[in-house]
Parts: sequence; structure tokens; C-alpha cells
Amino acid sequence: MKKTILLSHGEGGIRTHELIEQVILKYFPSKFLSDLNDAALLPVPADSMLVFTTDNHVVDPIFFPGGDIGKLAIYGTINDLAVCGATPLYLSFSLILEEGFQIAELEKILASAQKAAAQGCVEVVTGDTKVVPRGMADKIYINTSGVGFKSHQKNLHPDLIQEGDVILFSGPIGQHGAAIMAERLNLNQDQALSSDVAPLTELCQAALNIGGVRVMRDATRGGLATVLNEFARNSGMTFFIDEMALPISSAVRNLCEIIGVEPYYLANEGAAVLIVSPDSAAEIETILRENKLGKDAAIIGVVQKGDRPEVRLKTSLGTHRIITMLAGGQFPRIC
Amino acid sequence: MKKTILLSHGEGGIRTHELIEQVILKYFPSKFLSDLNDAALLPVPADSMLVFTTDNHVVDPIFFPGGDIGKLAIYGTINDLAVCGATPLYLSFSLILEEGFQIAELEKILASAQKAAAQGCVEVVTGDTKVVPRGMADKIYINTSGVGFKSHQKNLHPDLIQEGDVILFSGPIGQHGAAIMAERLNLNQDQALSSDVAPLTELCQAALNIGGVRVMRDATRGGLATVLNEFARNSGMTFFIDEMALPISSAVRNLCEIIGVEPYYLANEGAAVLIVSPDSAAEIETILRENKLGKDAAIIGVVQKGDRPEVRLKTSLGTHRIITMLAGGQFPRIC
Repeated sequence: MKKTILLSHGEGGIRTHELIEQVILKYFPSKFLSDLNDAALLPVPADSMLVFTTDNHVVDPIFFPGGDIGKLAIYGTINDLAVCGATPLYLSFSLILEEGFQIAELEKILASAQKAAAQGCVEVVTGDTKVVPRGMADKIYINTSGVGFKSHQKNLHPDLIQEGDVILFSGPIGQHGAAIMAERLNLNQDQALSSDVAPLTELCQAALNIGGVRVMRDATRGGLATVLNEFARNSGMTFFIDEMALPISSAVRNLCEIIGVEPYYLANEGAAVLIVSPDSAAEIETILRENKLGKDAAIIGVVQKGDRPEVRLKTSLGTHRIITMLAGGQFPRIC
Repeated sequence: MKKTILLSHGEGGIRTHELIEQVILKYFPSKFLSDLNDAALLPVPADSMLVFTTDNHVVDPIFFPGGDIGKLAIYGTINDLAVCGATPLYLSFSLILEEGFQIAELEKILASAQKAAAQGCVEVVTGDTKVVPRGMADKIYINTSGVGFKSHQKNLHPDLIQEGDVILFSGPIGQHGAAIMAERLNLNQDQALSSDVAPLTELCQAALNIGGVRVMRDATRGGLATVLNEFARNSGMTFFIDEMALPISSAVRNLCEIIGVEPYYLANEGAAVLIVSPDSAAEIETILRENKLGKDAAIIGVVQKGDRPEVRLKTSLGTHRIITMLAGGQFPRIC
């Protein structure tokens, strides 16, 4: 086996088969995948809806404190399914590799993805590997698509948001984005910043079991501010959040001050926004805090009827200001 | 709306939403997609198995005679489901865009993908768009993953191949690979070569309705030779093919002579290999020929027990030689 990726690893012939059989299948021992059919044939639970999602991952750097592109790809897709109330079950794992990429680095990423899949209780059942010439990708890009199932009853949608609903956030804000930015800017020597990348399945199910959840979404690209702006547009409501209530670590606060960004725009990869009914909010906050990913969970605001759909922040000075969606320029390749 | 792709189109904020809402959703009007949830919630037909597949597309050039990367991405994934005997239903469509890529070119690709999805009877229900800096991708890469359903009964697998089975090929060999190679080498001025990219769903279903199909596979990267070598390894059998029986267009033959490649290694994107029982072979050949994609369908060989699993070609001179899997070096970025 060669030590670096060659163009011929992407041609579909002997070298492609060697790469798949000697490298990739070591880490993904699914009986569905090892057949090397073009598709996986999977059982469907009775009386369920299919949930289907996809994500491209182009994060830079590919290894960062708390994770790497492989772990991120697996958990990112698990979380898209989990926040829809589904049980994530099967993932695809597709690679675009740059000619010359080290196979040892690929194996580290695959090992990390394997561990993440095991911890997230999903199986990688199908995949694809392409190679592009040197300079036509940045080491490795990963697409993970995923399917999960949910029972018919649990409907979750921004349309269900009502006046008086409560806004919860399940973890410390902006941990992933801050870790990536700090790595890129060489501002993380003490490793104080670490990505929160983790699977949200249990946390989401725990909240759903209480009842009263209108909608959940993981706050990835664009951060909390973008998710709330999306909800505002979908529901037509005004979202009030309280700066004093936001769970933000001192390390993220410090980084934000140094580089001049606001934490609401920084991505999380292991935390979600939950919009819940007023009567279930306290109980859901409690159950989230019992989850190891939710120990900093907090009620951060309320939903009201307003003049227009927008997100308003009550600052620590008692003033209000509008938090728009991320307007561009600061955060490329965060996931 | 800007005319070229900016890094901020990939950040998840305002620009990302503009790109999705003003460009991408114009072409994919699915009610599942327009919700802009992180995942699509889909109904499951009763008593069926789920079939799940994924493909990365990095073809160069992105526009070629007979198609483009958008059409290829849609039909490539449809075909992976169709050859498994599934009815393709829902696709994801994920983009990696290079900063500076023309939005007009993106729209041409999206329009082509939209048309392909309509013709292939599938719906694009979820997607993701990432942007990487100039020089870290080559214009556009597309991942399409797909789900389809099949009834429990129809089992298709190389393990089912038996001695005496017949090898069918559904169309002229190597049309897609030849068209791409000719474009890259500037050898296609008269446009004699055109990709065969097309959806195989009807053709596969027609064969399955006859019965006796052991396994089908579309002959993409690595071509006919690679598919037959995979079947040989899976089944332990020897695959005999007859050079005189192979459907190869004169344009593909001419190109192969000029550039010194063998047509068995050139990709198809609208043709499949079918291994069928001897008693059904003639009827399946007839039904394939009635399909517009199958009018050149031919019985090209037989499966025998041999000393080892391999593919043997009976040449026009009456001699035999072994056709191995593609050994590398000639065909990067064919799909």
C-alpha cells in the first residue's frame, strides 16, 4: 500500500479497491458496506417516517482541539437527524481526497469517525471515494448523509412556535467556532478552547420525552443568532434573548474580545436551540442539565408577538439591540 | 445577488440564505426542501426495504457533450439505486463551490440537475452548500446521496451468480468515459462522442419484471472490466466475454485506437451489466432492446466454473486473454 493518495486511487480500479479494502473497510466493518454494492439495503422500522439529511465538511484545520473532520462529519449528520426527533441509524461517508494526502492522516480521521459512529450508535453503510489532483482540494473533504426514523406523532416545526414560548440553549455558546478560529489564528496555545463536537441524540430524546418541544435545531454555521433569525422568519415572531442568561465560557468570551466577534455567531457542534412551551420549560431545562452535554443548559429568552420577525438582545446594560443573521466575511470553513 | 461565489456564501448567514433562496430553491421546488430544516421528513411505503447510496462527483470538465456535472450527479445516484432493484425516490444535493465560481454556471448546472430529477422521477429533498477559497476546489464538486425503496422479494447479489449464467450489457460500451477523455484531449471537434448519462430505472425494472436476474450493476468508473472482475471475485466464477459480441460504437473504437486505451475500462453512465439465468437471457435481451437506452443491448458472454475467479476475453482472432481490473494511471476525474 502506498503512503500517499495517488490519482489512481480514485479511478475505480485496482488501487481504488486496495484503498477501500485495506484502509477504509478496516474502520467501517458494516456488513452492508463490505458487500461493496453500489447501495446498501436496509430494514425499515414499522410505522415510522424516514428522516434524510446531508452535510459537506470542509473544515480547516482538519485536526483541532476536541476533534477532527471525521468526528465532525459523523456527529454533524447525527445531530441534524437528532434535532428532527429522529433516531439516527445509517450514514454514508464520502471522501474527496487531494492527491498527495498522507494515508496515515486519512487513517487517523477514519479511526476517529469509527469511534464517533460507535458512540453515536450509527452504522456507516455506504460510501464513495474520489481523488482530485494536487491543488484542487485542501487535503480532505467529507460528505456524510444520514437516515433515521421517527414515529409519526412527534411533529417539530418552526410553524408550531407560539407567543410566550421559551428559548433554551443546551450548552456553552460558540465552543466549536471559537476553537477553530483560535487554532487558525494561533491563539490557542494553552488549549483553553476545545470544540464541543458531540452527538445530541440522547439530549434531544430526553427533551422530547418531557413534551412541549416546538422545534429544535443545532446551532452550527452562523451560530445561535442565525438559528433564531431563521425561526423568527419562519414563525413571524420576535425572539427576545437576555445577554445575562447566555451560557458563554470565559475562554470564548476572551477570544471574542481579542478578535472582535460576537459569540452568537460562533458555531456549536454539540449544542442545540430548543423552543418549548412555557409550562414545560423548567422541566426540560432540568432534564437537559442532567445530560453530560447539557450541564450548562439555560433558559435564554422568550418568544413574543412583535412588529416584525426579528431577534432582540437585552444587553447587560438593560438596553435592547437587534441581532441580525451573520452578514458575512468572518467565518469561512468552520465545518 | 453577486455574480460570483464569495467565501461568505458558505458561512451560514445572510449570504448563504440568499444563495439558497434566490438561486438553489428556484430549481428544486420540493416542499421538503423549502422548509430549510436540517433534514427532510419523508413517508415510507409499506412493506419495503430502504436502499441508500452516495456519490461524490468531481468530473472534469464540468460541461461535456451529452451532459454536465449536475445531470451526472442526479443520474449517477438514480442508477446506483436502480441497479439494486429499487425505485429511486429522494435525493440530497450537496455542493462544494470554489470562491469565484460564476453563479451563471452554477445556475446552468442546477437547471440541468432539475431537469434530470424530473425525468428520473426523483425529488431533491435536502442539501448543503459549502464554499472553499480559490484554488481549494476545481469550480464545483457535487455529492448526491439517494434513497429508494424495494419490495422484500427481489434479492439481487453477486452471490446468486451460477455456472451457466449469461452476461448482458445494456448499451454501447464506454460512451461516457470516451466523451470525457476526448473533451480533455481536444479530440472531439466533430462531437461524435457524447456521454450516455441517463436514468436506468425503467430499463432495470423491465429486466426484473421478466425474472431470472441475479445481479445488475452500472459500469461507471473502471468500466465493464472492473464490474466483471468484482463479480468474479464475489462469486468465485470465471467470466468469459466475446470481443465480437461487445457493442462498441465506431467513435469509441477510433478514440481507443488513437489514445491507446481499451474500451472495457471506459466508464458508462447510462448502461449496466446484467447477469441473468440462461433461460431468461433471450427474453431479457429482447426487453432491453425495446427500451430506448437498450437498443444496442447484447449478450456478451457466459459465466463458468474456472480455475480461478477472473475475466477472460475471447478475441476476434479466437485467442483468449485475461482482462484484469483497471490498474491505474489513465482516467482521473471521469465522474
